[in-house]
Amino acid sequence: MFRKVLFPTDFSQGSYKAMKIFEEKNNVEIGELILMSVVDESIVEEMMNGYSLRYNSEENELKDIEKKLTERRIKELKEKGELAQEILKPKKLKLIVKFGIPYKKIVETADEEDVSLILLPSHGKLDFTHEIFGSTTCRVLKTTKKPVLLIKTYEEV
Amino acid sequence: MFRKVLFPTDFSQGSYKAMKIFEEKNNVEIGELILMSVVDESIVEEMMNGYSLRYNSEENELKDIEKKLTERRIKELKEKGELAQEILKPKKLKLIVKFGIPYKKIVETADEEDVSLILLPSHGKLDFTHEIFGSTTCRVLKTTKKPVLLIKTYEEV
Repeated sequence: MFRKVLFPTDFSQGSYKAMKIFEEKNNVEIGELILMSVVDESIVEEMMNGYSLRYNSEENELKDIEKKLTERRIKELKEKGELAQEILKPKKLKLIVKFGIPYKKIVETADEEDVSLILLPSHGKLDFTHEIFGSTTCRVLKTTKKPVLLIKTYEEV
Repeated sequence: MFRKVLFPTDFSQGSYKAMKIFEEKNNVEIGELILMSVVDESIVEEMMNGYSLRYNSEENELKDIEKKLTERRIKELKEKGELAQEILKPKKLKLIVKFGIPYKKIVETADEEDVSLILLPSHGKLDFTHEIFGSTTCRVLKTTKKPVLLIKTYEEV
């Protein structure tokens, strides 16, 4: 049994495929599954450019956007959680939403939660490239000391 | 349970460490474990340079060296096999020695044996580098379509 698995998801087709492949190829019990989503702070900053008129201060605006995005992400994560429960059948399921730089938050959460494995799709939402890995996956691999189970989700042509 | 796991080893400290880390962090049952070693053909070619006098033809010499190296490797693999049996406790254990380019033989064997997972240490014998992965690991990741469980065996400074 995998004691505690961290599965960062960006709600992409790749991350759904990764779960299916993992389950179909093997039949491994998971003690606790942590499904995680990171609200990318760089995208929020992007969104704020030119939209700072309605607010008294940038700081208030940032907090407001952060709050709204996090709430929406929690809702999405709950739906994904039902799917993960169905496919991977963990004994326990935990949902985490964080705000920041995705790879940093993933590595940080893996340590905080003392997971025994990080489950990563090779490519996520923004990675329509011919690279071996998507950029977040690559940065996680470079930074973490945890074992990583890497699932190829991108068919090379 | 992991149905069938391919574990390529170069008999390095890193590959031993990978087994220990995998077992300590998780407690996953393995159906069949294939322990594999590749006799690197480029090293054999290197060895042959300048040593081709005792033989009638290069071809005979190559076959002779290949045979001797493979026999030695099988012996080493048997010892390693006992260790793997003890640490990973697979229900079934198979030993394979191949001759060729390591990453190609690993990917080829993974397909031939229809494994459900490749277990890879991040760094092997020749990889005293600050790269994320050793060169063979990197090439396997790039080429295979199988899920790969990557174990960090190199402590970054």
